[in-house]
Amino acid sequence: MKVDGRHFRSIWLEPDGWSVGAIDQRRLPHEFVIASLTSAEEAADAIQTMLVRGAPLIGATAAYGMALAMHADPSDVALDRAYKLLIATRPTAINLKWALDEMAAVLRPLAPSVRREAAYKRAAEIADEDVGINQAIGSHGLEVIEAIAAKKAGGTINILTHCNAGWLATVDWGTATAPIYRAHDMGLSVHVWVDETRPRNQGASLTAWELGHHGVPHTIIPDNTGGHLMQHGMVDLAIVGTDRVAANGDVCNKIGTYLKALAARDNSVPFYVALPSPTIDFSINDGREIPIEQRAASEVTHMSGRTADGRIEMVRVVPEGSPIANYGFDVTPARLVTGLITERGVVRPDHAALASAFPERTGRR
Amino acid sequence: MKVDGRHFRSIWLEPDGWSVGAIDQRRLPHEFVIASLTSAEEAADAIQTMLVRGAPLIGATAAYGMALAMHADPSDVALDRAYKLLIATRPTAINLKWALDEMAAVLRPLAPSVRREAAYKRAAEIADEDVGINQAIGSHGLEVIEAIAAKKAGGTINILTHCNAGWLATVDWGTATAPIYRAHDMGLSVHVWVDETRPRNQGASLTAWELGHHGVPHTIIPDNTGGHLMQHGMVDLAIVGTDRVAANGDVCNKIGTYLKALAARDNSVPFYVALPSPTIDFSINDGREIPIEQRAASEVTHMSGRTADGRIEMVRVVPEGSPIANYGFDVTPARLVTGLITERGVVRPDHAALASAFPERTGRR
Repeated sequence: MKVDGRHFRSIWLEPDGWSVGAIDQRRLPHEFVIASLTSAEEAADAIQTMLVRGAPLIGATAAYGMALAMHADPSDVALDRAYKLLIATRPTAINLKWALDEMAAVLRPLAPSVRREAAYKRAAEIADEDVGINQAIGSHGLEVIEAIAAKKAGGTINILTHCNAGWLATVDWGTATAPIYRAHDMGLSVHVWVDETRPRNQGASLTAWELGHHGVPHTIIPDNTGGHLMQHGMVDLAIVGTDRVAANGDVCNKIGTYLKALAARDNSVPFYVALPSPTIDFSINDGREIPIEQRAASEVTHMSGRTADGRIEMVRVVPEGSPIANYGFDVTPARLVTGLITERGVVRPDHAALASAFPERTGRR
Repeated sequence: MKVDGRHFRSIWLEPDGWSVGAIDQRRLPHEFVIASLTSAEEAADAIQTMLVRGAPLIGATAAYGMALAMHADPSDVALDRAYKLLIATRPTAINLKWALDEMAAVLRPLAPSVRREAAYKRAAEIADEDVGINQAIGSHGLEVIEAIAAKKAGGTINILTHCNAGWLATVDWGTATAPIYRAHDMGLSVHVWVDETRPRNQGASLTAWELGHHGVPHTIIPDNTGGHLMQHGMVDLAIVGTDRVAANGDVCNKIGTYLKALAARDNSVPFYVALPSPTIDFSINDGREIPIEQRAASEVTHMSGRTADGRIEMVRVVPEGSPIANYGFDVTPARLVTGLITERGVVRPDHAALASAFPERTGRR
């Protein structure tokens, strides 16, 4: 999407035809810095240090990391070394393994002399496939927004979102944001309430930054605010992303999503979840089985920001000595979800509807 | 309650018999500093700059401000000047006007020669009356906690609270915290989940500080977390304070309270509101009529904290250019409230029960 009027993806092949550019997300929102990745080692480092983050983007970065390895040395030894290096960067990221296995499956059978070209081609396809999935999510979500727009007769459509399921977490468009960008680009009047999303503040730092640069009207709100807005008719729909959807349609997403879903239900506000279908985990029958990660207390106790004289400084915002609990995610029961916006359309959040939309995933094709 | 092992109120008469001590709440939680108020001007300044805050404490400070004025000059002119000076400090604080009117009603009929003594006496009574109300709230709330403790057979009782309705907002005990301190002091095993309470962070900065100094086990959580904890049986009850209760039992409190009440209902967790009865506004029939204050964007965009080398620094935590909405309060419908813990007992949140508990307030005694 756009940054300062120019179109960007979160990762791309540079005009030199071999090095890879990526937005350094560690510096956002305070600075827009482009990183140049010139080796598998640098790609691995980018994933590990969270220069890039978000499951689809991690997959694309790993794929380009393999291409960079083949650029330097297309031997079997180099291929195996790059795979091992990259797979170790974020051990639990499912897209990382998928992308690396894809690359290895393409490259291993080939003669070393043709691996370089094949690697860049497959990496570009993996990036483009992610863009295609998100565009499809955008199209299906757009229909949801258009239906609400029709009822509002030209009035602004107010959409609430939580955390960052935006284009920075993918290669382009994002998941929850794809319908919003589509609606905005086609001239619908949309306005986004952006949950700050404590403790990592990825709503205020990333989603607001994205929307602002693309020109989408938006307002940052503390996480406590959404219920009040819904009570006062100031939210027409909510769209969030997800880290994992159980087979019964329960949605695991950034902590606090459940509270917004409750408020949406209490005020008859439609609550949608946007996702690429690999996010559905048919091996988990009930969202309550999803393990919830506990993260570092420092994410709650400390915040980084810009001082009056322009320095970036980390400060402790919580008194010393009080224990902290920092659960990363919560599970929103399917009963509170209006629909799952996937690349194959809007699906009802239950096992039958999910299995019918994705029969190849349940082995019942 | 206790600070570093010693009992403190939030305001007190110093041993010299005329000057007034108060905790400088602007410096908390990073520093514990005691301010000395030696004139009506200094008392007015303490209220205006939020050295003291919280409706009951503001009232007590204003009363002592009148006493300090009489200490310096017990004339009619001085009395009127002090009243005008103090009433102008926080124009919308209802306790401020009440306390000043009380003081004026006592002092005006008296000869100047006896005003000084009468002023200190009435100011001390006003402070003691607040302590008495909170102790009564504590006793009635303790019964609620004891009933839950009986079911848990010695297990820890987990209580969630939002914002600061603690002793620092009153003269002592607090409202929502009074039952917690009572339960802890009598040896019940209580643990408090302290909502950070963005954007002003009064949960993390004040409630956690209070509980920590008094020795009450507690854990600070981001505001997004409470729903997840309730889903997992980790909250036995919620107790919050309130800024205003409508005649129908709707509760206006710090933004985000409504979301926690929804989660409590969804998980069958009792949700109580603790309040001194003057907080009930019988002139408002429905909570939806309560005007909701919008506060400065800077409360959301900036945070103050301690740097690694010990300085207190203010940093901008939100990108430049994004609009901010900062609603201070929300309204929790009475249907989500289990009970109102008042100085006269636990009252059902509806008009009939409130009118029956406080008949003198509805003119139907």
